[in-house]
Amino acid sequence: MKLACLILILSASSPVVVRSEELLPSWNKNGTREAIITFVEKVAKEGSPDFVPVRDRIAVFDNDGCLWAEQPVYFQAIYIFDRIKALAPQHPEWKEKEPFASVLKGDLKSALAGGEHALLEMAMATHAGLTTDEFNEAVRDWLSSARHPKTGRPFTEMVYQPMLELLDYLRANGFKTFIVSGGGIDFLRLFAEDVYGVPPHQVVGSSVKAKYELRDGRPVLVKIPELDFIDDKEGKPVGIHQHIGQRPLMAFGNSDGDFQMLEWTTAGTGPRFGLLVHHTDADREWAYDRESHVGRLSRGLDEAAQRGWIVVDMKEDWKTIFPAE
Amino acid sequence: MKLACLILILSASSPVVVRSEELLPSWNKNGTREAIITFVEKVAKEGSPDFVPVRDRIAVFDNDGCLWAEQPVYFQAIYIFDRIKALAPQHPEWKEKEPFASVLKGDLKSALAGGEHALLEMAMATHAGLTTDEFNEAVRDWLSSARHPKTGRPFTEMVYQPMLELLDYLRANGFKTFIVSGGGIDFLRLFAEDVYGVPPHQVVGSSVKAKYELRDGRPVLVKIPELDFIDDKEGKPVGIHQHIGQRPLMAFGNSDGDFQMLEWTTAGTGPRFGLLVHHTDADREWAYDRESHVGRLSRGLDEAAQRGWIVVDMKEDWKTIFPAE
Repeated sequence: MKLACLILILSASSPVVVRSEELLPSWNKNGTREAIITFVEKVAKEGSPDFVPVRDRIAVFDNDGCLWAEQPVYFQAIYIFDRIKALAPQHPEWKEKEPFASVLKGDLKSALAGGEHALLEMAMATHAGLTTDEFNEAVRDWLSSARHPKTGRPFTEMVYQPMLELLDYLRANGFKTFIVSGGGIDFLRLFAEDVYGVPPHQVVGSSVKAKYELRDGRPVLVKIPELDFIDDKEGKPVGIHQHIGQRPLMAFGNSDGDFQMLEWTTAGTGPRFGLLVHHTDADREWAYDRESHVGRLSRGLDEAAQRGWIVVDMKEDWKTIFPAE
Repeated sequence: MKLACLILILSASSPVVVRSEELLPSWNKNGTREAIITFVEKVAKEGSPDFVPVRDRIAVFDNDGCLWAEQPVYFQAIYIFDRIKALAPQHPEWKEKEPFASVLKGDLKSALAGGEHALLEMAMATHAGLTTDEFNEAVRDWLSSARHPKTGRPFTEMVYQPMLELLDYLRANGFKTFIVSGGGIDFLRLFAEDVYGVPPHQVVGSSVKAKYELRDGRPVLVKIPELDFIDDKEGKPVGIHQHIGQRPLMAFGNSDGDFQMLEWTTAGTGPRFGLLVHHTDADREWAYDRESHVGRLSRGLDEAAQRGWIVVDMKEDWKTIFPAE
C-alpha cells in the first residue's frame, strides 16, 4: 500500500505545494511578483471569499513583447521578409512593386511604412494558395534555421523566462492559459505548445480565410488571400469571445494593442487582474514605449494606475530576461 | 499516512481502470461499441504501434442529431421562433414580412421553406443589437423554461445517454472533446459545459460578428447582423482549423452536413475514426435519413463502408436513448 500510495502521489495531477518564496524565481521580490501571487492565491484557494472555480480561471497573454521579444521588428515580419526574398525569382514584378521592392532592397523601414496594412498585404501575397500543411512546413523550416539579427539566437529562445514561469505557475493553480496575439494564429501554433505549453486550440490570433477543397481526391485546406480577422485593439475582446467564449480572469499585455483586452478583462465582476510589461531595459533587452514603431505603449502607461493594472518594470522586476542567460 | 493516501486516491485525476465489459453501458454489445473501444485502446495504450500522444487525441462531435435530438426541427430554430413571438409587439412589420409572418401564424413549414438562409435571417433579426450578456440571459431563460413539443421535457434532457458515456469515456482516455456544430456557437456554449462536459473554448459553431464598444463607459460586446461563419459541410474542416488548429483523431456526426468533417478527419495519417449516427428508431426517437428536412443523411450512408466509417444503428446499438428512460 505504501508503494502504491507513493506512485499515486507522483502520478497525481494535484498541484504540488511549493513554498511561496520559491515561486517565480526569475522575478525580483519587488512588489509585482507579490501582487501576482496574492491574486492567484485568493482566487485559487478553496474557502477564500474571492474563490473562483477552475472552469472560470482563464488567463490571456499577448505574445509579441509580452512572451517573446519584438525588436527590431515583429519576428513574424522577419519571416515574411525572408519568404519574399525566397519567392522573388518567381515574382519578377515585385522588383517594381511596393512594399515588396523595399524588402528586396533591404530597406525594411520603407517596407513597413504602410504599417499593418502593408504587412498584411505581404503576408497574404506570400501565403495565398498554400495548403495549411505547406504553410506549416515553411514556418517550421524557418523557425529551425532563422536567427535573431542582434543576438544570433533562434527566435524561440527570445522568450521571457519570467513569463514562462508565470505560465507554469498559473497552470499549476488550475488556470487555462491562452495566447491572444495580433500575430498570425497559424504561425503561433507552430511553436506555442513546445515553447509555452499552450496547445493549438488555446491560441487566438489574426487570420486569413481558408477554403476546403479536394486535390487529386485528397482533402486540403488552402489559405486564400482574404482577411478573416485582425486580433488587435478592439479586435482582442472579439477574438476572446469567439475563441474562448468567456471573459478572462487575468490579462497580460505590453502595448496599447492590448488596452481593450485588459479593459474587457478587468471590467468583469469579482476579482480581475491586468498587467502590462514595460520595456525598460536597454542593456539586457530594449527600452521603448510611447514613440516605438512596434509595441507602442502610451495610453496604457497613462491609465494603468487609475485602472488598477500592474506595470512590470522589466529592468527592476526581472532577475533574468531570456532563458539562455 | 493512510488517510492522506486515500485523499490522494480520491483527488488524483489519473483514470480509474474500468473492466472492459462495463464500459459504455448504454451501448449494446453489437460490434459498434467494440469498434470504438478497440480504437481507443490502440491509440491510448503506451507501447501500442498505433499509440497517439495525449496532445493529438482530439475528438469532434456534431451536436444536432448526434449529441441531442433534432426533431421535429433543430431546437435552436424553436428558440428563434419563440423569440420572434416574444418580440412581435415591437415589430408590427413582421405580420406582413416573410418568414416572420409564417412563424407568427404558426406555419413553421412555410417559415423554414427558405432553408438555412431564412433561419439565419431570423436569427440575425432577433439578436442584432443585443450585448453578449443580454443574449446569454435570453437563451438561459429559454433553456430553463421551454419544453420539447413531443416529450414535454427540457431540451437539455433530449440528449443521448450513449453519447454522454462516449464523451466521458474518451476524456478518461486523454482525449479532448470538441463540439463542431452548424448551430450557433454562443447558443451552444450556454449548456455544453453542464450537459456535455465541454467547456466554452471547445465549442465550434456558426456565428454572427460582434463589435466591441463602450456604453456609458462600460465595455460591451454587441452582436451585429452580419454573418461571421457558417460551420456546416465544407465549413466544418475550416472551423476545426480556425478553432482547434489540429486535425482530429476521431469525428462523430449524423448527417451529410458532417461529411467533410469525417472526410477531413479520416484522411489524416495513422489511425483515424469516423462514425455516423443513423436515426432508425421511430418508437424511441425518430427514424429518418435520405428525405429528411433536418439532418439529411444520404451520401454518408452510400459511402460509409468504402471509407471505413462506422454507422450506428440507433435501434439496434443503443440500449437507452435518453437519460430519463
